[in-house]
Amino acid sequence: MKDVLHGLADAVQSAVRAYTGDIGQVVGMGADGTPTQQIDVVAEQAAFRFLESRRLLYTVVSEEAGRVEKPGEWTLILDPVDGTHNAVRGLPVYAVSVAAFPRAPPGQVERITQVTAALVRDLVTGHTYFAETGKGATLNGRPIRVRKPLEPKDTVFDVYLGQRAHPDACRFAGRARRVRNLGAASLDLCLVAKGAADLYYLHSTEVGHELRAMDVAAGTLIVREAGGAVVDLEGRLLDMPADPKARTNLIAYGDEKVLEMLR
Amino acid sequence: MKDVLHGLADAVQSAVRAYTGDIGQVVGMGADGTPTQQIDVVAEQAAFRFLESRRLLYTVVSEEAGRVEKPGEWTLILDPVDGTHNAVRGLPVYAVSVAAFPRAPPGQVERITQVTAALVRDLVTGHTYFAETGKGATLNGRPIRVRKPLEPKDTVFDVYLGQRAHPDACRFAGRARRVRNLGAASLDLCLVAKGAADLYYLHSTEVGHELRAMDVAAGTLIVREAGGAVVDLEGRLLDMPADPKARTNLIAYGDEKVLEMLR
Repeated sequence: MKDVLHGLADAVQSAVRAYTGDIGQVVGMGADGTPTQQIDVVAEQAAFRFLESRRLLYTVVSEEAGRVEKPGEWTLILDPVDGTHNAVRGLPVYAVSVAAFPRAPPGQVERITQVTAALVRDLVTGHTYFAETGKGATLNGRPIRVRKPLEPKDTVFDVYLGQRAHPDACRFAGRARRVRNLGAASLDLCLVAKGAADLYYLHSTEVGHELRAMDVAAGTLIVREAGGAVVDLEGRLLDMPADPKARTNLIAYGDEKVLEMLR
Repeated sequence: MKDVLHGLADAVQSAVRAYTGDIGQVVGMGADGTPTQQIDVVAEQAAFRFLESRRLLYTVVSEEAGRVEKPGEWTLILDPVDGTHNAVRGLPVYAVSVAAFPRAPPGQVERITQVTAALVRDLVTGHTYFAETGKGATLNGRPIRVRKPLEPKDTVFDVYLGQRAHPDACRFAGRARRVRNLGAASLDLCLVAKGAADLYYLHSTEVGHELRAMDVAAGTLIVREAGGAVVDLEGRLLDMPADPKARTNLIAYGDEKVLEMLR
């Protein structure tokens, strides 16, 4: 599965880098109801072409295509371009995010806690985050770990802010020494996984604008395999169905002591 | 001057990329009073070696070395690594920032409004922002412009937040559709210059932790040449002496209509 995810990321990266034309052109509505940008279509098509070229009959759950059933033993959940708005506005921070799980029995839907392999490729720098269950997380093949213990004088919080952010977000941001936000959830999660951020906090007050399973399935395994945790706003282990319409808020962290800073 | 600034950035980039050792090791206090990180020393030394190799007798105002007088006709203001904390924590967003002005007469100090050429090189992606007075701003040689007019439904504010941020910062962040922050002022300014952000707002309440002339001299010219503005918190054209100890807060924007969103 490792080779498949890397190959898929290579294919998406090549397609996106070759794509210098009508960046940001809206071509329709994706399966999850958000406006589809041309760059997403280019990236998704590259991913499907890759699977066809390898004759891999995997079911795919993706942003534009929705759930595409195939008879193979694996399901991939794919965000061909996480951070589309960044790409469209010219902020060079966006990634392909893909996670794999054994296909669920007929009539059931996979859940993100069942992911066994996950990859996030930064499409600007080419940096690749990868994890498999029980085998740890890596960046470009080298092991990464969350930051533990927390150093209270040197905290970096990655916080989702703006019109749709819950008022808690601003309060929590004010408690960190530094605040960063990249605007691409898969990469924001990877900052926690590699210890560059102590916390990633996303709490949207607008129903339908929380994070999707495609955004978080891969990054969540990477954080967990790097020694961190991803939970919902009630502190429970984050889980959600691999359904294009599912949404969640979340908290990811390296050291649970950071939660004391949110009280 | 264009060739000199690009050559200097090449030298710094090579040195930083070759530097894979004790990243983040504190080796002393810089001329401006902040802790010096090893990566800054490596980068600054590479810049000085470059100038020596070209026999360029420029005065240099830099983070570690302070002001180093030479008899040449030009002064460079240099931040060898803007975003040192990012680099040390593993957040792949940091840059070399350098600006040039004609040397001031003896007894006077240059001011950042006198900068005639400016370069910011993203040391991770290699992206190069460049401007000369009256000639516009470029990214990798292609003209860039701020975003005008403002699209109120699609605003991106780049806001400095955290323990040292003024309470206004959170209020303003809540008015934008999206909020981003990279934590490297030169690159945050370039986001405004290229239209990826509509606003960059930094208001530190802790004296001595505002931005330095080294952080903003280059990015300010790049924003202005891209059609935008950089002002102080009172809305006056930003200016400050090219002195390692000078500090400022600032607002950078593309369309002045964004200021109405801050009232």
